[in-house]
Amino acid sequence: MSNYFDYAATCPIDEEALEAYIKASREFYGNTSSLHDTGTKAEVLLSHCRETLADFLEVIKEGIYFTSGGTESNLLAIEGLMKAGKGNHMITSAAEHSSVKNSVKRMEAEGYEVSLLPLSKEGTVDVNELEKLMREDTVLVSIQHVNGDIGTIQPIKRIREVCDKWGALLHSDCVQSFGKVPLNSITPYLDSFSLSSHKIYGPKGAGALYISPSVSFRPLLPNGTHEGGVRAGTVNTPGIAGFTTAASKSIRELQDRQSKIKALKSEFLMAVKDIRSRITVVCESVNSVPIIGVCIHGLEGQWVMLEANRRGYAFSTGSACQVRREGSPPILRAVGINEDEAKSFIRLSFSHEQTRGDIHRLVKCLEEIISGYSVPSIKAE
Amino acid sequence: MSNYFDYAATCPIDEEALEAYIKASREFYGNTSSLHDTGTKAEVLLSHCRETLADFLEVIKEGIYFTSGGTESNLLAIEGLMKAGKGNHMITSAAEHSSVKNSVKRMEAEGYEVSLLPLSKEGTVDVNELEKLMREDTVLVSIQHVNGDIGTIQPIKRIREVCDKWGALLHSDCVQSFGKVPLNSITPYLDSFSLSSHKIYGPKGAGALYISPSVSFRPLLPNGTHEGGVRAGTVNTPGIAGFTTAASKSIRELQDRQSKIKALKSEFLMAVKDIRSRITVVCESVNSVPIIGVCIHGLEGQWVMLEANRRGYAFSTGSACQVRREGSPPILRAVGINEDEAKSFIRLSFSHEQTRGDIHRLVKCLEEIISGYSVPSIKAE
Repeated sequence: MSNYFDYAATCPIDEEALEAYIKASREFYGNTSSLHDTGTKAEVLLSHCRETLADFLEVIKEGIYFTSGGTESNLLAIEGLMKAGKGNHMITSAAEHSSVKNSVKRMEAEGYEVSLLPLSKEGTVDVNELEKLMREDTVLVSIQHVNGDIGTIQPIKRIREVCDKWGALLHSDCVQSFGKVPLNSITPYLDSFSLSSHKIYGPKGAGALYISPSVSFRPLLPNGTHEGGVRAGTVNTPGIAGFTTAASKSIRELQDRQSKIKALKSEFLMAVKDIRSRITVVCESVNSVPIIGVCIHGLEGQWVMLEANRRGYAFSTGSACQVRREGSPPILRAVGINEDEAKSFIRLSFSHEQTRGDIHRLVKCLEEIISGYSVPSIKAE
Repeated sequence: MSNYFDYAATCPIDEEALEAYIKASREFYGNTSSLHDTGTKAEVLLSHCRETLADFLEVIKEGIYFTSGGTESNLLAIEGLMKAGKGNHMITSAAEHSSVKNSVKRMEAEGYEVSLLPLSKEGTVDVNELEKLMREDTVLVSIQHVNGDIGTIQPIKRIREVCDKWGALLHSDCVQSFGKVPLNSITPYLDSFSLSSHKIYGPKGAGALYISPSVSFRPLLPNGTHEGGVRAGTVNTPGIAGFTTAASKSIRELQDRQSKIKALKSEFLMAVKDIRSRITVVCESVNSVPIIGVCIHGLEGQWVMLEANRRGYAFSTGSACQVRREGSPPILRAVGINEDEAKSFIRLSFSHEQTRGDIHRLVKCLEEIISGYSVPSIKAE
């Protein structure tokens, strides 16, 4: 029985991943840059992790750089690709994770020009609009693979086609898609992409950045020795071992996890039939992304979340990385939801380990909150 | 019995720190920014860690920001303090860790002016020289507390006095001193300082940056929500719990560890009496820093290191973060060792858990290498 529905914020650790972490901490503790056997032993494990991850992703291992997580990967990619590029312009979508958005803000503060790509009502970027924003000096297009608030999947292949026409690079934040949808179907179209460990039941504090060895890159910190000079600092071998274990498992079990998630999402959509008139599922689709965004008419999302919490259920009102700052997620405005309705937003995210029973209990909890408290309405702030 | 003498590069994990990591991974897995109970539970643990560390360091907890390690802490500090400052000038020493040196290079590339403070023959910075380098527009002085190659301790209090005269901020890389010498005797003199977890037997991938709340700071990534906006990305609560456990232990046991290290260093200096004419101990002193730098006359340090490795002993030829790039550590030139002799450098670093027997076996190994292979001499590269 699980009342946790915030797997898009973070996951509990997988026991096999934790075991790998523990084993690496005890037996492979050397600094991977040390030239003696204790260092070499850790370096061999690190290389093995790099190769394993590269094989699963169908990219070459020389392009995999381990980082402290998705945020650092996005920052390194955007800064490193823009500064190595010849132009002054980049394009990103109106619904990126805060780590991308803030990395882009950082570039803007340094004098780079940024265009914001709007989204269609379906929650995907408008590729025709992208075509219009492209310029001769566009260095980089950065578009997430899967949105972390409502779970929509972006058309990476079509975005790539536009990038190719203009000679622009394509980076994708794949933190919410890795382990949820097959990534190797889009990796051939990406010059770089970001992954996070804790979103796939791996240890926190680990992640990866892929950068195609064929593109120019300027590291944030110059003259580094670890991780091919792309990411400085002693390598977190145990975290990476745990991450790789979790990643391997998520990819091996991908088909099974996908069908379980699809079944849970269908179950949710069926189970809410009695309260359908009271809620809107944002950009509804039964894909294998374990995220459903819901607006609950007339109730404030934050209040619903806290009421559910009082009953022992955990979900969120958007990405944990921005929820304290911004209120409702920007993608809601991007898909045409007005500000009042956006305040009623909650994000539910599931695990393949959950059951139909878990879903029904969650829906029952939501029903109780909605029916029992129909009076309070959103006040203008 | 321990043949590992590279504790300055990294330490094996302390079992209590690992237990804390495991417990936090399983029971406090929530995202600290999530507003539900699972998130709050993790946030409470995080606050507890922050408070514990602050208490030991005798600084206020609002100034402690957890990071992925020493390198990130130094980067964030140097960039954040310089960019928030009104001047264009900073001063650093000629013997900083590569993370400081490269962060400074990064600032130089952005147009900031940097002065390099020389070291005396004793391996400490020359405070009179610092006085001469200070300018009206000096924003920041960044000086390590303890050198990672030869273990010399810098006169932080006197450096502070000079900074105060000119209204400059003082940052210190305390990665090699934390848990080795009492830090609370210098924290009152610092505006910011960096700590690392894996150098004190904590988990890799964790560290901290202290920034005095009274100074201006501009975060690398704007608009962050985690860690007071200073460090972006999901907080690695398990890593921080392990770090805090290791930190608490190192501070509680500090006096005991200090006397053990002093005894081991004395033991080493006595044990090498038969090969004294063949070696130079660089800036010899019996303080409690578990690092001894040695030049072995006529032999290449890297060759000695590899010969020792063949016999099962692990030590290094300098910081693991720069050894593959630079050959011998820059501090050797700074303290007046010529380039040829610098090539014969090895760094030995100890643990309080080691014994006299360990030291004697190490010295015997060195004796064998020196006596058995007196012929090969350094060739000009």
